[in-house]
Amino acid sequence: MFSPTATRALRRAASSNTKHYICPACKYSTSNTPNRVIFSGIQPTGVPHLGNYLGALRPWAKLQDGAATDDRLLFSIVDLHAITIKQDPRLLRQWRKEMFASFLAVGLDPKKSILFAQSDVPAHAELMWILSCFASMGYLSRMTQWKSKMSLPSNANPFDTSTSKKKDAPALKLGLFSYPVLQAADILLYKTTHVPVGEDQAQHLEFARELAITFNHTFGADLLVPPQTIISPAKRVMSLAEPTKKMSKSDPDVKSRILITDTKEEIHKKIKVALTDSIQGVSYDRDSRPGVSNLIDIMYHFQEEHFASPEQLTKDLFGPETSLKVLKEKVANTIDDHLRDVRERFSSAMSMGDVEMSDMARESADAANQLATSNLKTIKSQMGLGWD
Amino acid sequence: MFSPTATRALRRAASSNTKHYICPACKYSTSNTPNRVIFSGIQPTGVPHLGNYLGALRPWAKLQDGAATDDRLLFSIVDLHAITIKQDPRLLRQWRKEMFASFLAVGLDPKKSILFAQSDVPAHAELMWILSCFASMGYLSRMTQWKSKMSLPSNANPFDTSTSKKKDAPALKLGLFSYPVLQAADILLYKTTHVPVGEDQAQHLEFARELAITFNHTFGADLLVPPQTIISPAKRVMSLAEPTKKMSKSDPDVKSRILITDTKEEIHKKIKVALTDSIQGVSYDRDSRPGVSNLIDIMYHFQEEHFASPEQLTKDLFGPETSLKVLKEKVANTIDDHLRDVRERFSSAMSMGDVEMSDMARESADAANQLATSNLKTIKSQMGLGWD
Repeated sequence: MFSPTATRALRRAASSNTKHYICPACKYSTSNTPNRVIFSGIQPTGVPHLGNYLGALRPWAKLQDGAATDDRLLFSIVDLHAITIKQDPRLLRQWRKEMFASFLAVGLDPKKSILFAQSDVPAHAELMWILSCFASMGYLSRMTQWKSKMSLPSNANPFDTSTSKKKDAPALKLGLFSYPVLQAADILLYKTTHVPVGEDQAQHLEFARELAITFNHTFGADLLVPPQTIISPAKRVMSLAEPTKKMSKSDPDVKSRILITDTKEEIHKKIKVALTDSIQGVSYDRDSRPGVSNLIDIMYHFQEEHFASPEQLTKDLFGPETSLKVLKEKVANTIDDHLRDVRERFSSAMSMGDVEMSDMARESADAANQLATSNLKTIKSQMGLGWD
Repeated sequence: MFSPTATRALRRAASSNTKHYICPACKYSTSNTPNRVIFSGIQPTGVPHLGNYLGALRPWAKLQDGAATDDRLLFSIVDLHAITIKQDPRLLRQWRKEMFASFLAVGLDPKKSILFAQSDVPAHAELMWILSCFASMGYLSRMTQWKSKMSLPSNANPFDTSTSKKKDAPALKLGLFSYPVLQAADILLYKTTHVPVGEDQAQHLEFARELAITFNHTFGADLLVPPQTIISPAKRVMSLAEPTKKMSKSDPDVKSRILITDTKEEIHKKIKVALTDSIQGVSYDRDSRPGVSNLIDIMYHFQEEHFASPEQLTKDLFGPETSLKVLKEKVANTIDDHLRDVRERFSSAMSMGDVEMSDMARESADAANQLATSNLKTIKSQMGLGWD
């Protein structure tokens, strides 16, 4: 997007006001700026699993509960991102509802946070188009996510004839290529100051920051706010069936993941058959004992306030004498204890009538629309897209 | 976007209900379908010149005046397209107003046609994003307009290293590459049946048709209407200073074009110094006498109802004895006669206060928004992007 020199200068300017610290309550790295605007999004993929819960939804709820009164929090079901790959309309509709119910289930509260579906706020797409006119094709082609979604090598270019000529290869669609610009719009639309994301999104955040800086530079005004990243301490929850892979919604083996709605019996059953190893006793070593370590990690994530590290937890609670059966039972109990309230709230949210849920979702979207429309109006006016 | 076989089949299906005829009133090729929805757009480039007037604005006004009561007409100032290249915000704001005033000046009537700025209707960008997820990068890269705007050869690809590595070459921006998808959204949003465009836009129309057909096929419903083209009989108005080039807003020589607001004196002055040749008498031959023929063409465009062709006009009014001075005087008088009302109405429209004009523009945009929102809601709902 920029020349290397400009990029370096812009990066320096952008990072100069970034002061990170780790929040003692939620373990998030954040800054001491007042009046934070926190935005994050999650795709509607149906009932969240433990990975979604521990990596995104629970941290969001903690951010909400630890927020100052002058902080503003927005959490979005990013359904416009979901359609960059083929979706079954019936399922997508159901998954949006399940994700909204999950927001409520994990303790996100429409009175404290703005919870909304991205497609209910037209300004996301509007700002996306505007930013399109400032985003360079070259920069986008170097982004890695469209390549991984299309199973292409990281050096592939969008018109790589060697790949696109493959007979069954689906053609790369514009939406999949350009969605980092939509993601930048999602964030910049609300003058977001802080974006809690995993490390895999750092590239997209940097892109959003640079777009904001170019845009402000072009119009000589601080119209967009280059956001800071709130980097989540890695909470990678691995598959129960194949603990070297991340827990995933798309794994055909349903026993590979625990959903936040699983009953006590389902949790115990899935943990019982989780792949471990034949080494005796309980010890923590992610490389040589991935299955056992994943179970310990899960337990630790639920009890971070009591233990300094997974290693400490292992030392305090288990040992070379503990059988894996005992470990599994403790892990299953811990999960069940913590998810009990979540699944009850989920079930009560899903038992709302369609009308009640859509009213709730729309009311929250109204709040997002108000903010978005007001910010976008200023941006458009400054660009000359206005009548007065 | 499709396999060659699919493309052929889709084209057949799409063209089977296309029945063109030339409208005797306005000389547009159109169809006999009732309940037409006619959409077209023009970029805000300030006060229109004769080329804009004869090629777009006047035909639109004729379409409006010849429309049936159950036809719907929408004419848009496509300002979101304008920003695909760098714009001065102050000028863009002014040019939007001047284009709106020009709409009124040429006889477009907010009571008969919906006249609005594209950026006042968020659904254009929303549908653009949705269609992005169905538009293939390969198809877009074969479009020619981004190449001509970047002065690249027609076989250039968006990551052509030989061109993008040039030191002063500006980087290709996503917006310039993807704008045919926005153009498709503009049209498809209103279930447009007829799009009056010049031949240079045929490629984009075909793209919109194919996108509509793929989309309908994907969702098994006639959500989008593949539009028909109303092909304007070529009304190329050439530069007065260099009659082998099209009359253009961007020509630094203001005497190369006549604006619809030019006074009688300005018209006479510009026509007087228009480049012709040193051949004696008046004759029509676009190849050997481009300057003279351009003047005859302009005169003919204003008097199509009286003459069968520019050649006939030449034969009836002029001859080998006529001096170029006489020709020029007649041409200037004809232009002035026809533009008198237009420039008066323009001046009265521009003398509206900012508030009055913005109220008028917003009221018309409300009508566009109502149609657009209703159509988009159906589309989104069918895709699963809805609560109920």
